[in-house]
Amino acid sequence: MPAAPTAGPFTLNEIAQVCGGHVEGEGGVLIRQVNTLERAGDGEIAFLANTKYRKQLEQTRAAAVVLAPEHAPLTAAPRLVIDQPYVAYARIASLLNPAATLPAGAAPDARIDSEARVAASASVGFHAVIGAGALVGESCVIHPGVVIGARCSVGARTVLHPNAVLYPDTVIGADCVIHAGAVLGSDGFGMAEIGSGWLKIPQIGRVVVGDRVDIGANTTIDRGALDDTVIEDDAKLDNQIQIGHNVRIGARTAIAGCVGIAGSVRIGKNCKIGGAAMISGHIEFGDGVTIAGGTVVAKSLPEPGVYAGVYPLDTMDHWRRTAVRVRQLDELAARIEAAEKRLRELAADSAGSAEKKQ
Amino acid sequence: MPAAPTAGPFTLNEIAQVCGGHVEGEGGVLIRQVNTLERAGDGEIAFLANTKYRKQLEQTRAAAVVLAPEHAPLTAAPRLVIDQPYVAYARIASLLNPAATLPAGAAPDARIDSEARVAASASVGFHAVIGAGALVGESCVIHPGVVIGARCSVGARTVLHPNAVLYPDTVIGADCVIHAGAVLGSDGFGMAEIGSGWLKIPQIGRVVVGDRVDIGANTTIDRGALDDTVIEDDAKLDNQIQIGHNVRIGARTAIAGCVGIAGSVRIGKNCKIGGAAMISGHIEFGDGVTIAGGTVVAKSLPEPGVYAGVYPLDTMDHWRRTAVRVRQLDELAARIEAAEKRLRELAADSAGSAEKKQ
Amino acid sequence: MPAAPTAGPFTLNEIAQVCGGHVEGEGGVLIRQVNTLERAGDGEIAFLANTKYRKQLEQTRAAAVVLAPEHAPLTAAPRLVIDQPYVAYARIASLLNPAATLPAGAAPDARIDSEARVAASASVGFHAVIGAGALVGESCVIHPGVVIGARCSVGARTVLHPNAVLYPDTVIGADCVIHAGAVLGSDGFGMAEIGSGWLKIPQIGRVVVGDRVDIGANTTIDRGALDDTVIEDDAKLDNQIQIGHNVRIGARTAIAGCVGIAGSVRIGKNCKIGGAAMISGHIEFGDGVTIAGGTVVAKSLPEPGVYAGVYPLDTMDHWRRTAVRVRQLDELAARIEAAEKRLRELAADSAGSAEKKQ
Repeated sequence: MPAAPTAGPFTLNEIAQVCGGHVEGEGGVLIRQVNTLERAGDGEIAFLANTKYRKQLEQTRAAAVVLAPEHAPLTAAPRLVIDQPYVAYARIASLLNPAATLPAGAAPDARIDSEARVAASASVGFHAVIGAGALVGESCVIHPGVVIGARCSVGARTVLHPNAVLYPDTVIGADCVIHAGAVLGSDGFGMAEIGSGWLKIPQIGRVVVGDRVDIGANTTIDRGALDDTVIEDDAKLDNQIQIGHNVRIGARTAIAGCVGIAGSVRIGKNCKIGGAAMISGHIEFGDGVTIAGGTVVAKSLPEPGVYAGVYPLDTMDHWRRTAVRVRQLDELAARIEAAEKRLRELAADSAGSAEKKQ
Repeated sequence: MPAAPTAGPFTLNEIAQVCGGHVEGEGGVLIRQVNTLERAGDGEIAFLANTKYRKQLEQTRAAAVVLAPEHAPLTAAPRLVIDQPYVAYARIASLLNPAATLPAGAAPDARIDSEARVAASASVGFHAVIGAGALVGESCVIHPGVVIGARCSVGARTVLHPNAVLYPDTVIGADCVIHAGAVLGSDGFGMAEIGSGWLKIPQIGRVVVGDRVDIGANTTIDRGALDDTVIEDDAKLDNQIQIGHNVRIGARTAIAGCVGIAGSVRIGKNCKIGGAAMISGHIEFGDGVTIAGGTVVAKSLPEPGVYAGVYPLDTMDHWRRTAVRVRQLDELAARIEAAEKRLRELAADSAGSAEKKQ
Repeated sequence: MPAAPTAGPFTLNEIAQVCGGHVEGEGGVLIRQVNTLERAGDGEIAFLANTKYRKQLEQTRAAAVVLAPEHAPLTAAPRLVIDQPYVAYARIASLLNPAATLPAGAAPDARIDSEARVAASASVGFHAVIGAGALVGESCVIHPGVVIGARCSVGARTVLHPNAVLYPDTVIGADCVIHAGAVLGSDGFGMAEIGSGWLKIPQIGRVVVGDRVDIGANTTIDRGALDDTVIEDDAKLDNQIQIGHNVRIGARTAIAGCVGIAGSVRIGKNCKIGGAAMISGHIEFGDGVTIAGGTVVAKSLPEPGVYAGVYPLDTMDHWRRTAVRVRQLDELAARIEAAEKRLRELAADSAGSAEKKQ
């Protein structure tokens, strides 16, 4: 199997210099790649996330291990001791696996409008199209088949993967990654109902994306109706997410795959939205809101917290019986109330009869 | 920031001539763009949807306002008085922001089969592909990267945005908009189970789309197995919708983002389906059915009405407690029934004992 | 309407020789196409799935009918009698509608890297891109706009429909169908939280797909973080499915549209997952698990069986009342318990009072 190109190798000591932490054991060991404790071998470094994997640590054949100070005594292997092993692992993995670069310059069949400005250090792939008035920043990578509409702006070092589409006037910051098939700036779903059907409302806002934003494969973000749709700095969006017009996603908010966010929603900063959650239109989340996957949210959540609303899993047979009961819940509650009333009456009778007897 | 090209400016009087309504105040004021009451300024027209925004109307710096007759006295600004301000706003926005046109003719690297027929007034973008036997109507706009399969038919003035794909034999009417990444005519999910796996059933129906249909970004519509999959006139489909084979969507029905419609479903006319609703296969909706977002529908709904089925949102802690109870509902109902029976027995005892005492 | 090319015609006898079964009635009748009992006419063969359609069988004008031995006496039409009529129908439909073939060789504007190896019998469409080190097998069909990254491998006879994207290092087996807009190998959603935002974790695993796998339009499959994401032989994936990093889908498992599967999930063999089901991360299904459409699964399901968890559909008005009650379920259960306790006390009192009376 051919392998993707990597950087390195580096000694464990060199890695410590770049990524922090201190080395215990043989610091001259050569590291070429990261791997799991279970599968790592010669030239590979693994990390211990928590003591649940202690057994695997004992048995690992990794050339070196990353772990927290309290776990350093658990192995005799060469080790990088550091406070947040997972973060260190991320840094080491990035050091060893730098993003693939493409040569600067445009493929001969890329179509760059004469009124577009593309930095000389940018790479523009086969069959890419860049419209009039568009700006593409330093060291951008525009993969094959990408279409960048008129007057778009793409910040430095941003990568657009194959066949991604930016409609005209879309603004993307620096250091973003837009995955394959993502569509930014399509028309919002705005129509006025008239007798014979629907009257389209022109969508004249834009999509404006900050710096260091990731947008997953086949995710779609509609342009604003009047105002812009805004994705703030460091927001991370997974695959197949749908963002409606005029939505604002706060900085550092992470959204998992298949989430749908309807028009004019405002999501605060540092929120986490689980996969396939659905957010109804025109509501607002404060900062630090976490939503469980699969939850439908139809009201604003101003306070930080963890919210959920998912029908519990069951066997089909048992689900059939309980689902019927869900629809009877109002009646069941009334029957409980009636029983409580009857109980109070019986108690009163019984007290009365006791009184009479006295 | 460069701006998208607009038409105009027009005087308020000219706008009234095109869009209806009558002018009160200075009709010569020049209007270049639409905006919100809050943000509109010189050269911009805003609209008042309802009196909730009365405060914003008082404070607006808009050059002119669109509003209903009963609200006309609420402002001294130049105003267009008309019965349905939102519809008028849509018309004005369209007048000021005509859809971008592209020059007629085909880009040099578009690949149009010698047996395809493309109207001279159509625009075919870079790297677009049009297959043998395909027809593309007058003034169509085929954006870059679009692939139109053999024997497809695209009606006049229909726009296909970048990288949309029509499989062979797909039929699209006039004045449609197909957004980027949409796929029409892919194979339906039809297979016969055999011992060793699955036997594919060729999908030989087509996708047939009427006039004035919008189809959102990355929406997918499968071709029919034997019959066609049909989207009737004036239906509006948002982004990331999945339509299975043999489905029929009625005229003027609007479907929000992330909806999934399984095979052989029939949706009536004038239906509204909320975001992320999921419709099981082989069921039928009458006309005028509205489904709340996030609802799963597994049975036919012949009658018009509004339907819902969404687990209510809660804090994670409280949800954990109630979700357990949902699975106990059948048992809880049995306990209520037992309590009711016991109450009847006690009442009978008590009556009997009362009788004895008499 | 121009028609897609078909094979044939064949006589019913010829069809029986290829697809099995025996002929009753006139075996020389010419068959050109399949169709439904209701719509089939001259030159068309229909099939009877079950006796529910007996009426349609009586009225059909089909040239021939496929049916089970026990139903053979129900018609006098020429008929192919065979044990599994639906499977036979699939075979006949495939015989009459062979997949469209494209001429071998590469379009002049396809961009095949000089270090890629593409079989001479493969067809590479307009504007397709094949990267360095990639392998494309015998008789593959690479449709227009497809992008195949560096070091990918595509097995014999596999078809990639327009604008599908394979990121570098993706491996696909033989006889697969990848539909338009599908994306394989995009980065998994892996990040470490750091104070100022998120640190990306390089995703260095691959996507590895077996033989005879179908992947639907706009479906996305992320590459592994360290291990590979694996789709085993004969798995069938519908449109708009999202598969997270490190997932493994077992052989012959079928997944309907809009399903989301979070990272590190393992699905067994011969599973069936209904549309829009959502599977949380890091859980495991055994073989033969069936999940109802719309169900959220957040725990492992080691045993085969049918599972569901969907809020029941209701009218909006009634749903509003029951949904409130769902959130009160814990309180309702406590009230039932209190009533039961009170009943026991009353019964004890009543027994005591009865004792006293004696």
